[in-house]
Amino acid sequence: MTERIERQMAFLAEVDRLKAVLRRTTLIDGSRRENSAEHSWQVALAAAVLAEHAPPGTDLPRAVRMALVHDIVEIDADDAFAYDAAANVGKEEREERAAERIFGLLPAEQAAELRALWDEFEAGETPAARFAVALDRILPLLVNFHGGGGTWKLHGITRAQIDRRMAPIREGAPGVWTWVQRTIEEACERGYVRRE
Amino acid sequence: MTERIERQMAFLAEVDRLKAVLRRTTLIDGSRRENSAEHSWQVALAAAVLAEHAPPGTDLPRAVRMALVHDIVEIDADDAFAYDAAANVGKEEREERAAERIFGLLPAEQAAELRALWDEFEAGETPAARFAVALDRILPLLVNFHGGGGTWKLHGITRAQIDRRMAPIREGAPGVWTWVQRTIEEACERGYVRRE
Repeated sequence: MTERIERQMAFLAEVDRLKAVLRRTTLIDGSRRENSAEHSWQVALAAAVLAEHAPPGTDLPRAVRMALVHDIVEIDADDAFAYDAAANVGKEEREERAAERIFGLLPAEQAAELRALWDEFEAGETPAARFAVALDRILPLLVNFHGGGGTWKLHGITRAQIDRRMAPIREGAPGVWTWVQRTIEEACERGYVRRE
Repeated sequence: MTERIERQMAFLAEVDRLKAVLRRTTLIDGSRRENSAEHSWQVALAAAVLAEHAPPGTDLPRAVRMALVHDIVEIDADDAFAYDAAANVGKEEREERAAERIFGLLPAEQAAELRALWDEFEAGETPAARFAVALDRILPLLVNFHGGGGTWKLHGITRAQIDRRMAPIREGAPGVWTWVQRTIEEACERGYVRRE
């Protein structure tokens, strides 16, 4: 039992490093870039708050746990900006190796369990995974919209790029799809996003 | 439905401010103080990883949701350092007002639901609340221990103070109580904590 607890604690100490992985998105107040740990918190909380908009058959506690682990691989693989094609080359392989090492700190059957959660998120095929993926897209939308355009404005992102990026929300969180479309339209109106 | 979604999104945007609430505890690497949002993520993840050490009868998904909301009131009330008696004066009233305002951004029945989660955490009487409270104590222990003493060393915290602070773990996460005691003892050995 002692070794088991030591491994669980070693994992919880190791993931502390996710607090130092910076995303492109900033806080809404624009004061700094957000990190992947606090982003994961907001996605997990969003899963609880927006539960009623999840696809039929969603295992909600599973979606919440998925949100909690979905970015842990970035400790080794770093965050790749969604709109930067070059940064996304080789991403899959880097993340696979990271998952192997980091989840591997846990006792074997727990390593397999958390790894399976992450694999499910990446595959995005179950209702819970689709929901979690949708939330992971909604949060930057919310943050950029309330933050006066944020990274959209900074990097000159176009409406077509955002439409592609947000497309999984249609099936992953059907209940908020209309809100998402309206928000993107409003972001264009306000000049946060280039129409092209 | 539109107004309902607007309220849910307004809440998720408002809680972005928890990322700017600083705790005394630093990251394990000592580079900066941690914030309450990323701390909440780590507590929620710990609930998933340490689930087997929870008290009998723990509703685990509820404990995870509790971890996600347990510090939200700090957006208005700020974080009070556990070992600073003065900072804790009037804390309860400040937090009550904060809960009223922040959870109140949500649709009424969801506001009541999240408020109930927070009240349950604060009361610390159900198995899920005891577990969540215990995790909220274990994390700073882990972070300070792996960080070479962290805030214990910085503020000259004594073993008696830590023993009092960690006491709820005994019933809240019985499976790790021996590990906690051993870790505190080792922290004294290493000079991270004053024996008195």
